[in-house]
Amino acid sequence: MYIHVFCHWCSYAGPKTELAIPAMVELNCALIGTGINHVKLLPASNDDHGGVIVDMREPVEPDFFLTMLRASMLLWRQQEKRGVWIKLPIELVNLVETAVKEGFCYHHAEPSYLMLVYWIPETPSTIPANASHRVGIGAIVWNDKRELLVVQEKIGIFRRAGVWKIPTGVVDEGEDIFMAATREVKEETGIDTEFQEILAFRQSHKSFFGKSDLFFLCFLHPKSFDIQKQELEIEAAQWMPLEEYAAQPFAKKHELFKYIDDLCLAKVDRNYAGFSPLPTTSIVNDRISYLYSNIRGLKLSSPDDHQ
Amino acid sequence: MYIHVFCHWCSYAGPKTELAIPAMVELNCALIGTGINHVKLLPASNDDHGGVIVDMREPVEPDFFLTMLRASMLLWRQQEKRGVWIKLPIELVNLVETAVKEGFCYHHAEPSYLMLVYWIPETPSTIPANASHRVGIGAIVWNDKRELLVVQEKIGIFRRAGVWKIPTGVVDEGEDIFMAATREVKEETGIDTEFQEILAFRQSHKSFFGKSDLFFLCFLHPKSFDIQKQELEIEAAQWMPLEEYAAQPFAKKHELFKYIDDLCLAKVDRNYAGFSPLPTTSIVNDRISYLYSNIRGLKLSSPDDHQ
Repeated sequence: MYIHVFCHWCSYAGPKTELAIPAMVELNCALIGTGINHVKLLPASNDDHGGVIVDMREPVEPDFFLTMLRASMLLWRQQEKRGVWIKLPIELVNLVETAVKEGFCYHHAEPSYLMLVYWIPETPSTIPANASHRVGIGAIVWNDKRELLVVQEKIGIFRRAGVWKIPTGVVDEGEDIFMAATREVKEETGIDTEFQEILAFRQSHKSFFGKSDLFFLCFLHPKSFDIQKQELEIEAAQWMPLEEYAAQPFAKKHELFKYIDDLCLAKVDRNYAGFSPLPTTSIVNDRISYLYSNIRGLKLSSPDDHQ
Repeated sequence: MYIHVFCHWCSYAGPKTELAIPAMVELNCALIGTGINHVKLLPASNDDHGGVIVDMREPVEPDFFLTMLRASMLLWRQQEKRGVWIKLPIELVNLVETAVKEGFCYHHAEPSYLMLVYWIPETPSTIPANASHRVGIGAIVWNDKRELLVVQEKIGIFRRAGVWKIPTGVVDEGEDIFMAATREVKEETGIDTEFQEILAFRQSHKSFFGKSDLFFLCFLHPKSFDIQKQELEIEAAQWMPLEEYAAQPFAKKHELFKYIDDLCLAKVDRNYAGFSPLPTTSIVNDRISYLYSNIRGLKLSSPDDHQ
């Protein structure tokens, strides 16, 4: 068997990686005696955990992909690599079946790509879990007249039920919780708000395709008061006295609605302390992340207060 | 064109759904004049949002799948269905390419299956987002000698760095945060604990495959004290005075380590109030979910306290 092609990293004009030359040399060593003396490899880079990531971008015939995959796997086994990742954009869907038949499993998918994975060692897999949670917010917007901002929805489980509820929404990937709360209120009702605190959150399971859900109840001050409701999803929106909100039959029946009532009263009448965001820098880079904590409780013992 | 097969729901011995007969009748009506008078449909059930879910389980040739998919799509368009979902177990990987070529996108994948989706209407898609967050815990286990339970890890960014850190881990899909905290401590160190509070949490972005991350700092009381470290991932484990932990160069440099120090002192010396779990029942079923809140702050205004 003789395959007259040469290392992907040499034949392409794309960026070279440190893997390039050693990989080719090692593969040629590994193949001595097999009759294969030069094989094209898959474009791969090392990850931080002893594995490799193949980021396929160029179209290739499934048969040729299979040859490259088998040669690459032979090399990676020799190199004692651990996890092998293959990222296939949806345009390269014709390669999915080949990878699966070689023993790859799905890891995760987004609309535009599929990620497959293979664990080489005999030891237990340390492949990290896929994203497991969706994150949502409920926005308690409270004005000086002891009124809540409430909406009736056109879609979802409350549609056409006449239930007045607080604005809710999904926190996007990459979005901060406090930003999501102000964004959702603005989108649904046109009201500008200032984020105050997370009063509570609820974790629930099997909420969607088997995934878990984290729902953060946020407390916000309004900065504007004229409602401009969103037409597509919102049937009606208004300011409503807390007592009227809490007196709804649905709200009396369901614990989460009762907790919203309790939390509002605790917050405005008893100075309940929730969690607020503090900017922090990441351990691994300079990116800002937000730490949510009981800031009043924390400040009592911070060095700044002892000066 | 004449396809001599008949409705999936009639030809199979499996459970029938409400869709079965109307679907077949409507399809036959829809196909009058096309020369197709009896077509096998994909096995589908309605969802709660005006869409349909196809749960493929039986092997089928891609060509035949294509015929069924096209006939089914014709019907669903006539019925003004919205989202069309196709769940393909990994064994049916040979059908992925066909679905994608008919315009389906990936929605999400788990090791054993791929979920594809298609939005029929002209209106903006309301297809729910994929899971966006991974959830982790850090466990502050505090004994009566003002010592923390700390470990050195064999893997990850702290490997071979000589850094003493609190036990951390990933919250599994379907697992409650407080349960994950006690589980991780037990797994890594053999110590039994009682969960007390979430002291703070941090949201960070782009932490893994573009996903976001929620990391909950939990405070726990130990119920046992003899350490039995886990061999695979843990290099060393011990009880360490808080001052010694905080004096590590790495801990002085990184904000999250400093916050752990601040939060410990606030909690034990100033009675800092974090969030604790309260069991609640779901809005849509009887399943228990946990609401995490500042329970002391909440109880002050709960009806039980006024009796």
